[in-house]
Amino acid sequence: MNLPSLPDDPDGTNLDFMPQGYPELVGALTHTLGPKNVLTSTEDILPYGFDGTAALKQRPLAVVFARDAAQVSAVLKLARVHRAPVVTRGSGTGLSGGSVPVAGAIVLCLVQMDRIMEVDAANLTLRAEAGAITQRIFDEADAAGLFYPPDPGSMKISTIGGNVAENSGGLRGLKYGVTRDYVMGLEVVLADGSICWLGSKCVKDVAGYNLRDLFVGSEGTLGVITQVLLKLLPKPAARQTLLATFARMDAAAETVSSIIAAKIIPCTLEFLDRKTIQCVEDFAKVGLPRDAEAILLIETDGHPAAVVDEALKVEELCRSHGATTVRRAASAAEAVQLATARRSAFSALARLRPTTILEDVTVPRSELAGMIREVETIAVKHRLNIATFGHFGDGNLHPTILTDERDTEEMQRVEHAFADIVAATLARGGTITGEHGVGLAKKPFLKRQLGDASYELLRLVKRSLDPDGLLNPGKIFDLSETLQSDE
Amino acid sequence: MNLPSLPDDPDGTNLDFMPQGYPELVGALTHTLGPKNVLTSTEDILPYGFDGTAALKQRPLAVVFARDAAQVSAVLKLARVHRAPVVTRGSGTGLSGGSVPVAGAIVLCLVQMDRIMEVDAANLTLRAEAGAITQRIFDEADAAGLFYPPDPGSMKISTIGGNVAENSGGLRGLKYGVTRDYVMGLEVVLADGSICWLGSKCVKDVAGYNLRDLFVGSEGTLGVITQVLLKLLPKPAARQTLLATFARMDAAAETVSSIIAAKIIPCTLEFLDRKTIQCVEDFAKVGLPRDAEAILLIETDGHPAAVVDEALKVEELCRSHGATTVRRAASAAEAVQLATARRSAFSALARLRPTTILEDVTVPRSELAGMIREVETIAVKHRLNIATFGHFGDGNLHPTILTDERDTEEMQRVEHAFADIVAATLARGGTITGEHGVGLAKKPFLKRQLGDASYELLRLVKRSLDPDGLLNPGKIFDLSETLQSDE
Repeated sequence: MNLPSLPDDPDGTNLDFMPQGYPELVGALTHTLGPKNVLTSTEDILPYGFDGTAALKQRPLAVVFARDAAQVSAVLKLARVHRAPVVTRGSGTGLSGGSVPVAGAIVLCLVQMDRIMEVDAANLTLRAEAGAITQRIFDEADAAGLFYPPDPGSMKISTIGGNVAENSGGLRGLKYGVTRDYVMGLEVVLADGSICWLGSKCVKDVAGYNLRDLFVGSEGTLGVITQVLLKLLPKPAARQTLLATFARMDAAAETVSSIIAAKIIPCTLEFLDRKTIQCVEDFAKVGLPRDAEAILLIETDGHPAAVVDEALKVEELCRSHGATTVRRAASAAEAVQLATARRSAFSALARLRPTTILEDVTVPRSELAGMIREVETIAVKHRLNIATFGHFGDGNLHPTILTDERDTEEMQRVEHAFADIVAATLARGGTITGEHGVGLAKKPFLKRQLGDASYELLRLVKRSLDPDGLLNPGKIFDLSETLQSDE
Repeated sequence: MNLPSLPDDPDGTNLDFMPQGYPELVGALTHTLGPKNVLTSTEDILPYGFDGTAALKQRPLAVVFARDAAQVSAVLKLARVHRAPVVTRGSGTGLSGGSVPVAGAIVLCLVQMDRIMEVDAANLTLRAEAGAITQRIFDEADAAGLFYPPDPGSMKISTIGGNVAENSGGLRGLKYGVTRDYVMGLEVVLADGSICWLGSKCVKDVAGYNLRDLFVGSEGTLGVITQVLLKLLPKPAARQTLLATFARMDAAAETVSSIIAAKIIPCTLEFLDRKTIQCVEDFAKVGLPRDAEAILLIETDGHPAAVVDEALKVEELCRSHGATTVRRAASAAEAVQLATARRSAFSALARLRPTTILEDVTVPRSELAGMIREVETIAVKHRLNIATFGHFGDGNLHPTILTDERDTEEMQRVEHAFADIVAATLARGGTITGEHGVGLAKKPFLKRQLGDASYELLRLVKRSLDPDGLLNPGKIFDLSETLQSDE
């Protein structure tokens, strides 16, 4: 690996920072994309030096905007000639540092490629460019009476290309799956500039290796996703929303198990812990009981008769497992109000301290209640303020550390708490990241989860597809690291 | 690539056939696996020289049986030392020649690895060894009140490892997807003998590249799947079965479109064409109208109220789109009887001529009616007997050529008809194989479907993961072929 080795230069003041060939590279990019589509001044490129992840930033060399796969291909070919790293991004809402540039990188921004080209109601598909906003995709499908289920928290501003690159989740994972489950085809530009189409409109297609799914969740390290063909569903005809409060987290967990044992798969099965409940109540005043240890937000959807029946059963199961209160929304407006408790969790927590770090570990569902308790113990041990909420049905919890990145002593305790949370997760058969990706944030823990053989296989695939190591280098893993050590 | 170059030796009489090191290799295999688990005599290994695909067979060097991943690893390491190809197989029910050996190959048979280790009702998962029979997996899940949806036609004898390696489909694809959609984790032995675990019990897991899905459908060419972790669903509470006959295929197609437009996704949506109807009626005497141009078998499942409602709507839609008859099963027994019409299609057709060749092209659903007509035209053009049935909801059709492999002139016409069917499929945005895999049967057509860049990417991945080219060589594509030519 011969990556350009450049000094860290977050302020953009270090002139040694520029790789050899910098003026030629910028000149060639400008010639290819037009001057308006190449940014190099510090003030212009500053907003592209970070994403939604706290405490990570890096000044890139330049920011460029492409209009189509051919321009993306041209950028990658130029980058290859000049040995410049390329970091692709959309809106930069990622939560693992996946689109934070490396020094000397060209940031390739795809937000101008935002067309939704086709909604095909007969085949239940939608085709869009990578820069299309997720919410628009949902809306276009909705307007055709169809349904695009993945709903990551950032969907109002995130791009579909970013969702696919990170394999984003959301609140509907248990019943409807994640972004991957809705990707039927991809247009991808490879490191050498070649343009591939992977997948088709066919519901079944086993012609050759499934490389489409290799790019889903590859975090910009294997190629640049320029177009997506998505699967849609018929829009569910009805929905019912319930909010149940519990004095004990275990009672909430038993309720969830009993719902699934009753053959009901809710489309949403979210929880808040006590700290989150108190914060949300302070913030949104939705009338939550401040002494509850857990709240479950449960939604079922589908055929109207099935939904009514399931909602009744769920209510009964909540009560028989010791729920202190159960509210069933009588109208769409009330459903929105109940969902506010969950949807505002992150904003409510983010008000309390300068820095909010959102964890994303996931365990098998049966392990979730125990894991939440373990996070509480870890918070006490390291004297930290950690509130937890997340997707109970998916075993996906978001322990949220409320801290201050300027306090180096406290940040050290945060690091230790992270390490403990990861260790506890892996001991329960869990994963270090359920939906945010590895990026920079989870890189130190990946090998421990995968084991040496699987980890080495990942690096082999990376080396094969990106032999110069120029696509989003340093994310997920380091290629230079030798693999003798056992973590 | 330095594959042993050996003369074709289907009868096993050519002594030059043995590669250098043959006695040493067999000796080492015998030492590792025990003499009972290494077959070398012609009569013993003959049954392992073919699979479910007509007109393809090849004598291997030896057949070996492994008991666990460690033994599989040992076999792959020995094969590497002796540069012997390894062809992995289960029950050999494949329909694309994927497990037909190459000359000099070790056939690695996994049928002894047939344990079902765990059904985890809380997390809705099942863990099994690769050699477990698919039907047993369905039955074990069923006994726990759970549901493993993929139902390939061969499920009573096929192994789950084979299903995963081929990404098998079945009759429930439209609503429930295919085998891939139920694989949460895999144990895989790589070409160098290292053992990887890919995936987890977590519903969401984005830790590193998704290599699990790379192995699903890789047809034994990238590694040996030794264990699978499968996702289960709650068993649907109710089911309704309908059989509708149509005087015109277009009326059937319009009915299907109207069902989906009505937001109903049936779990089964199968069709038979006129030739298949007549054959089935001759064979099974289920009272089908011999003059119908199409029959649809439609099943809905789920919540009892939803199922009743959907079945009524489907019946109404069939009638309003010109169905000549609609029968709705009043009992489980009647449902089985109706389904017999579809389930016996292949057996009924196979009686007519010595050789039955089952095609597997798939088109976007909206193209299916047109594609069926095109197959009829192709049959007339090449003076062949082709009956078509398949999965309407998936756009997956099985044109079935009734022929005689001993008639070389007719077989030439079969080849031409194949080429025409493939060309028509690709012109409609379809795929050369929906659920049977590429193997040997579809190899000549793959590049045309994928295009040069994607095809070359497949070969790059193969070269990276299997640098000696010993895993199921010659399947899907040839590594030696240069890629200048345009097909």
